[in-house]
Amino acid sequence: MRIECIAIGTELLTTRRLDTNSVWLGERLADLGLAFHRKTAVGDSREDLRELFQEALLRSDLIIATGGLGPTFDDFTKELFAEILGVELVEDATARADMMAFYTARNRVPPQVNFKQALIPVGAEALRNPVGTAPGVWWEDPPGHPGVRIVMLPGVPREMKRMWEEQVEPRLRPLAGRARQTLRMVVAGVPESTLDERTRAVREGHGHLDWSILASLTQVELLVRSDDPRALEGVLSDMRPVLGSDLAAVGDGNLEDAVLEGLRLRGHTLAVAESMPGGLLAARLTAIPGASRSFLGGATVYSPVAKSALLGLPAAFLAEHGTVSEATTRALAEAVRRALGATWGLAVTGNAGPGAEGETQVGTVFLAVAGPGETVSTGRLIPGDRADVQLRSTAAALDYLRRQMA
Amino acid sequence: MRIECIAIGTELLTTRRLDTNSVWLGERLADLGLAFHRKTAVGDSREDLRELFQEALLRSDLIIATGGLGPTFDDFTKELFAEILGVELVEDATARADMMAFYTARNRVPPQVNFKQALIPVGAEALRNPVGTAPGVWWEDPPGHPGVRIVMLPGVPREMKRMWEEQVEPRLRPLAGRARQTLRMVVAGVPESTLDERTRAVREGHGHLDWSILASLTQVELLVRSDDPRALEGVLSDMRPVLGSDLAAVGDGNLEDAVLEGLRLRGHTLAVAESMPGGLLAARLTAIPGASRSFLGGATVYSPVAKSALLGLPAAFLAEHGTVSEATTRALAEAVRRALGATWGLAVTGNAGPGAEGETQVGTVFLAVAGPGETVSTGRLIPGDRADVQLRSTAAALDYLRRQMA
Repeated sequence: MRIECIAIGTELLTTRRLDTNSVWLGERLADLGLAFHRKTAVGDSREDLRELFQEALLRSDLIIATGGLGPTFDDFTKELFAEILGVELVEDATARADMMAFYTARNRVPPQVNFKQALIPVGAEALRNPVGTAPGVWWEDPPGHPGVRIVMLPGVPREMKRMWEEQVEPRLRPLAGRARQTLRMVVAGVPESTLDERTRAVREGHGHLDWSILASLTQVELLVRSDDPRALEGVLSDMRPVLGSDLAAVGDGNLEDAVLEGLRLRGHTLAVAESMPGGLLAARLTAIPGASRSFLGGATVYSPVAKSALLGLPAAFLAEHGTVSEATTRALAEAVRRALGATWGLAVTGNAGPGAEGETQVGTVFLAVAGPGETVSTGRLIPGDRADVQLRSTAAALDYLRRQMA
Repeated sequence: MRIECIAIGTELLTTRRLDTNSVWLGERLADLGLAFHRKTAVGDSREDLRELFQEALLRSDLIIATGGLGPTFDDFTKELFAEILGVELVEDATARADMMAFYTARNRVPPQVNFKQALIPVGAEALRNPVGTAPGVWWEDPPGHPGVRIVMLPGVPREMKRMWEEQVEPRLRPLAGRARQTLRMVVAGVPESTLDERTRAVREGHGHLDWSILASLTQVELLVRSDDPRALEGVLSDMRPVLGSDLAAVGDGNLEDAVLEGLRLRGHTLAVAESMPGGLLAARLTAIPGASRSFLGGATVYSPVAKSALLGLPAAFLAEHGTVSEATTRALAEAVRRALGATWGLAVTGNAGPGAEGETQVGTVFLAVAGPGETVSTGRLIPGDRADVQLRSTAAALDYLRRQMA
C-alpha cells in the first residue's frame, strides 16, 4: 500500500509551524506495519493543491491530507478533491448537528461561514470531530480511482489525533499487515553518540529488528519494533544491564513521568524553587495528569525579592553568594522543602542568556536536591540558546532528583 | 520564482525525526523575499526520488534538495539528477582535495566508498563543504531545463546551514525579487471564525494582497504580505478600528511579548500566582529574553499547603471558598502582589482535568488581577484536554491583564 501525506497550510512553508502532524501519523502507521512513501507540505493555494491532489490520486493508494477543513476563505481541501473527482459537496446532517451542538454547548451561535464545514463530497463519509467544528472525510474508491482511499483530517493536532485514533485507525487495521509493537526505552543524562556506542553490541545481537535512536533536548529514546513480543522482551533484558541507572523509563512515559512515578511509589512529595528556568520545571511536572498526588508546587524566584519574600532568603545571603550560585541553590532547595513540608526540595538557578548575568557565563546552571538525607548540589554548563538552556536545565534537574531518589 | 524543497532520507518518513532543515531554509528564503511553494520529504528509494526529481524539474524554477550526498549505498541524489538530465558524473579536483584534507587533518585515510562523494555532474559546480566530507552542487540551466537551478546540500544541518549561508545565498541574492514584507497582527480573546467575519470587509478592500489567518490555542494571527510597504501601512490603519483592543501586538511578538512590553513601557512589575496552570504562566513569560526587567516571579500554588505556606492564605479561608474559586483567586492575586511588592498581581486557578475536582467542572478557570486600582476577577469555561486548558488559561490570564493595563 503506497501511502502519502499531504500537510496543507501556508504556515507550514514558512518558519512559523513545524509539520508535527505527519511525524505523529508516521509513528501510528509504523504501529500498523505501514509507512509513508512521501510527505508533502503545501500552501493554501488552489493551483498548488489541485496539482498535488491530481498527482497523488495517480501514485498513491492511501492519501492522508491534513488541514484546509476550516471555515475560512483559505480552506478548500474538500472542495478541490470534489472538483477534481467531479462530484458535488452536500451537507451532512450529522456534521451539521455536531457543529450546532458544539456551539450550543458554549452558548454561542455558529457564524455563517462555519456551515460550509458540514459539506461533504457525495460518496464520501464524514468523520465526526468530537473536539472541534471541522468534520473529516473518509473516501473509499472515489470516482475513477478504484482501490484508492482519501482521508481528510483537520490540521489542529488535537482534533487530527483523536479522529485518527477513533475513526481512521479502525478502518485501516483490516488493510494493514501484522501489527508491530514498539519497545521504547527512555535514557536520561547520556549523549546520543555515547548511547549509540554503548548499545551497539546489543543492537547488533538483535540486528534483524528495526531500531532507531531519537535524541531530543531532554532525553534520548531508543526504539525497537517487532511483530514478535518475545523478541522485544529479549531486547529489554539485554539492555537493562547495559543502560543501568541511565534507563529512566520504559514504555510511553518520559523523564517527568518517571520522576512522578518514583515519588508516588515511595509516597513522597516534591516542592521546587526555580529562578531560571522560570516556571518551566513546575510546568513540565504539572503537564502530567495526576501530578498533584506528589507535586505540592513551589516558587518561581525570578528576582532577588522573590527569593527573599517567598522563601525567606536574607538579602545579605544573596548579596554574599549571588543569585546564580551553588550556595544559593542549596539554600533555595532547603527553604522550599521546609516551607511546603515536602519530602524533597529541588532547586535550579542559572543563566539562560542571551546576555551574561554578573559573572556567570550563559549556560551556567546549578542544581540542588534537599531530601531526607543531606542536601546535594552540582553545577553544569549547558549548551544552546535561551530556550535550549531553559529546557535542558529542567531535564538535568529532574534527572538529578531521579538519581537521588533511587 | 517557484521554489521547492526536497528533503531526502527514509528517517524523515519513519521516525519522530522532524525535517527541521526545510524550516530553517524557509526562514532564510523569507529574508530574501522568497518562499517555498512546496516541501516534500521522501525516502532513500531510487524510484520515488526519480519520479519526484522529474516532476520538480517541470514545475519549479529552483529545486533545493537536502540529503542523499553521503558515501553509502543509499545515497544517490547526484547520480539520479545526472541520470535524468542525461549527463555523466566526473570527479571534481577541489572536492577530492577537500575530502583528502578533511581526513588528513584527523589522521585518517578516507574509506574507498568516500571517493564517490567527489563526483559532480558535468556542467554543475561543486559547493565546498568546510565542515564535512560531502560537497554540494549548484547547477544552473541543466540540459533541457533553461532557467532552472538545482541546489543539492548535505542533510546534516550544520553542514547544510554553513554551505547555504556562505555559498548558496550569495548566488541567490541577485535573483531574488523585491523583498516582500509581512504585516503580522496578533489578536487575543477572539475566535478565528469571528475574526474572519469581522475583518472580511477590510480584507476584501485589500484583496490583491496575500492574506492568511493562523489560529493557535493562545492567539490568532492575521498575516498579510506585499512588496509595497505603503500597502501594508494602509491595511494596518484600516484594521486598527476594526480590531480595537483585541489587537494585542503588531510585528514579531506574541501575546506574552505584548504584556511584557506593556509593563516595561509603564515601568510596572508583575508577580503571578498559579495553581492550574502549574508554572506554565510564569514559563511563558520567562521564555522571553529580558522578562526579568518586569517579571518578578511568583508562586506555583499547586496544593493547599502551597497557598498557605507561600502566600499566607489561611486554611480556614481555603476551606470556606475552595481551592478553585473566584474568591481564592482574588486572594492569591492580592497576596502575591503584596508579597513581591509588584505593580500587578495576576492569579489563575482552575481544573484542567482529566477528572472533575470537587465540584468544579473540567475547564473551569478563574482569573484575577490585583493592581493599583481595585481587584478584578472573572470565571471562564475553557474547552479542550488538559494541555489545552492549561495553555489556553495562560493566554486568557495574559489577555485579561493586558486589558486591565490598557
